[in-house]
Amino acid sequence: MKALVIGRDAQVDLSDVPAPSRAGECLVRVTVAGICGTDLHMVRGYAAQTGVFGHEFVGVVEETPPEQADWRGRRVVGEINVGCGHCAWCDAGEKEHCPDRTVLGIKQRDGAFAELLMLPIANLHEVPPAVEDEAAVFTEPIAAACRILEQVAVGPDTTVAVIGDGRMGLLTAQVLRSTGARPLVIGRHQEKLAVARQLGLDAMEHTARAGPFDVVVDVSGRAEGLTLALELVRPRGTVVLKSTFHGATPLETWPIVVDEVSVIGSRCGPFAPALDLLTRGAVQTEPLIAGEYSLNEHRQAFDAAKTHLKVLFRM
Amino acid sequence: MKALVIGRDAQVDLSDVPAPSRAGECLVRVTVAGICGTDLHMVRGYAAQTGVFGHEFVGVVEETPPEQADWRGRRVVGEINVGCGHCAWCDAGEKEHCPDRTVLGIKQRDGAFAELLMLPIANLHEVPPAVEDEAAVFTEPIAAACRILEQVAVGPDTTVAVIGDGRMGLLTAQVLRSTGARPLVIGRHQEKLAVARQLGLDAMEHTARAGPFDVVVDVSGRAEGLTLALELVRPRGTVVLKSTFHGATPLETWPIVVDEVSVIGSRCGPFAPALDLLTRGAVQTEPLIAGEYSLNEHRQAFDAAKTHLKVLFRM
Repeated sequence: MKALVIGRDAQVDLSDVPAPSRAGECLVRVTVAGICGTDLHMVRGYAAQTGVFGHEFVGVVEETPPEQADWRGRRVVGEINVGCGHCAWCDAGEKEHCPDRTVLGIKQRDGAFAELLMLPIANLHEVPPAVEDEAAVFTEPIAAACRILEQVAVGPDTTVAVIGDGRMGLLTAQVLRSTGARPLVIGRHQEKLAVARQLGLDAMEHTARAGPFDVVVDVSGRAEGLTLALELVRPRGTVVLKSTFHGATPLETWPIVVDEVSVIGSRCGPFAPALDLLTRGAVQTEPLIAGEYSLNEHRQAFDAAKTHLKVLFRM
Repeated sequence: MKALVIGRDAQVDLSDVPAPSRAGECLVRVTVAGICGTDLHMVRGYAAQTGVFGHEFVGVVEETPPEQADWRGRRVVGEINVGCGHCAWCDAGEKEHCPDRTVLGIKQRDGAFAELLMLPIANLHEVPPAVEDEAAVFTEPIAAACRILEQVAVGPDTTVAVIGDGRMGLLTAQVLRSTGARPLVIGRHQEKLAVARQLGLDAMEHTARAGPFDVVVDVSGRAEGLTLALELVRPRGTVVLKSTFHGATPLETWPIVVDEVSVIGSRCGPFAPALDLLTRGAVQTEPLIAGEYSLNEHRQAFDAAKTHLKVLFRM
């Protein structure tokens, strides 16, 4: 099958590779896949993975173990972490932190920039008919935003800022808005802030002259995001770190102590509420789509993803 | 009266200054005062305060407003934050975060390295007869350690590490132990780790080869404390930042995200449980006392405090 393969030197090639094969798992034919910040990180050289990458997808189940034959032909999205199945984390249902986990397209498991991928049935979620492929492919990042609501109380009376006007910023702000809160998106790109406003979100240029906020979510993917978040959060407020930034960042930690701020890391989240938000139209994805490419056009696709919002591969 | 005054250049002088005078507050004659890390910070030039400094004390109430006359002659310790009394923070009983607060010996309020100080009656706590002056003077830092128990669930089944073998480290570890937990003190000074062991605490030299722990408290006062804490904490665990470090610290923030760690700032705490721990003998202070000095001997006292555990001034 055709797949995008990333090498040890972070070189990306469209290759002909064997179809994946994992006993006891389901084979999914990928329909649409999305490029996210983690993929761009990997292309910049922060790849733990060599092999097929990509982890945001929607597809159709093609083969299953015999006892799950009723899933064949279903349209699905998939959770990306696969636990070992027999450690304390897996026993607790928290496979995202299993020390021996594999992660679709990120860690020791071939990914979604391919015609076919494999995942266990437990990772798959059927997509409701009302949600089109081009929206369903956003389920994984929307789920990651939903994770915040499992960690921090957010409601109509919560003042919230989202630092970052990229893909995750605009999804996260919509997820937070679904609670009745009215998040402010703070960004650096006029055209992306315009999309935020098109989505009905409050949006303003990067500045510290706002707030203070009960909750500040940093999805900027930038070294200075956390420092700005600490300037914007109220005493005893919460900063949620959503995007990873690699490299040591100079940080003054004393404001965390003096203002008794909680800084909470937040990673993968639950798919069911994400699909529910998509079904209800509470999260709009169409204005975020910056282009669709074939795997052949991967160079143009990654170039576009560096400066634009969501770039999709159609297989 | 005699008092230690810190100037804009962080120069400390023993001066003859007017006794403090604040309408509606109580005048306390200081018996014993303690030097803490914040005082050493100020002496090193990080003083927001000019004037009389020091904030850990035990004393005797000498004058009060007429309606609080029954407090005269009582032996007291005192909370150090005084709120404006009419903001949302003060209304919520959280004067520690009132933006217009004064702080004894730290912010716009003369402090405890003096014969006399003033605080409102609401800040004073009577010291039980069983608690000697030399123990009672530790109430404020023990209360700060008790703050952790208001923020994080700690009990017999919680694995806990305390990074830092100084004054606050040994008090914090004892407070955490009072929950039934068995904290490990991780430090860099053989003689202080020996005091930890004398207190019945587990103690080991600075290393990352321990853990992972559910809760890691950083009271190291060092730039690298937070990085070590992030190495020691388990996924979804909690790092409590207890000591302030001034200056930008290089920090890799991605482990916070990947492991979904909570980093929680922790400052001042409740006096009642601190006095209870002292009364029950659950926190031992005597092994921490490195020396007693008069205000005249302030240079020797601060020199001793730089390398030893708790140094006291007896007025």
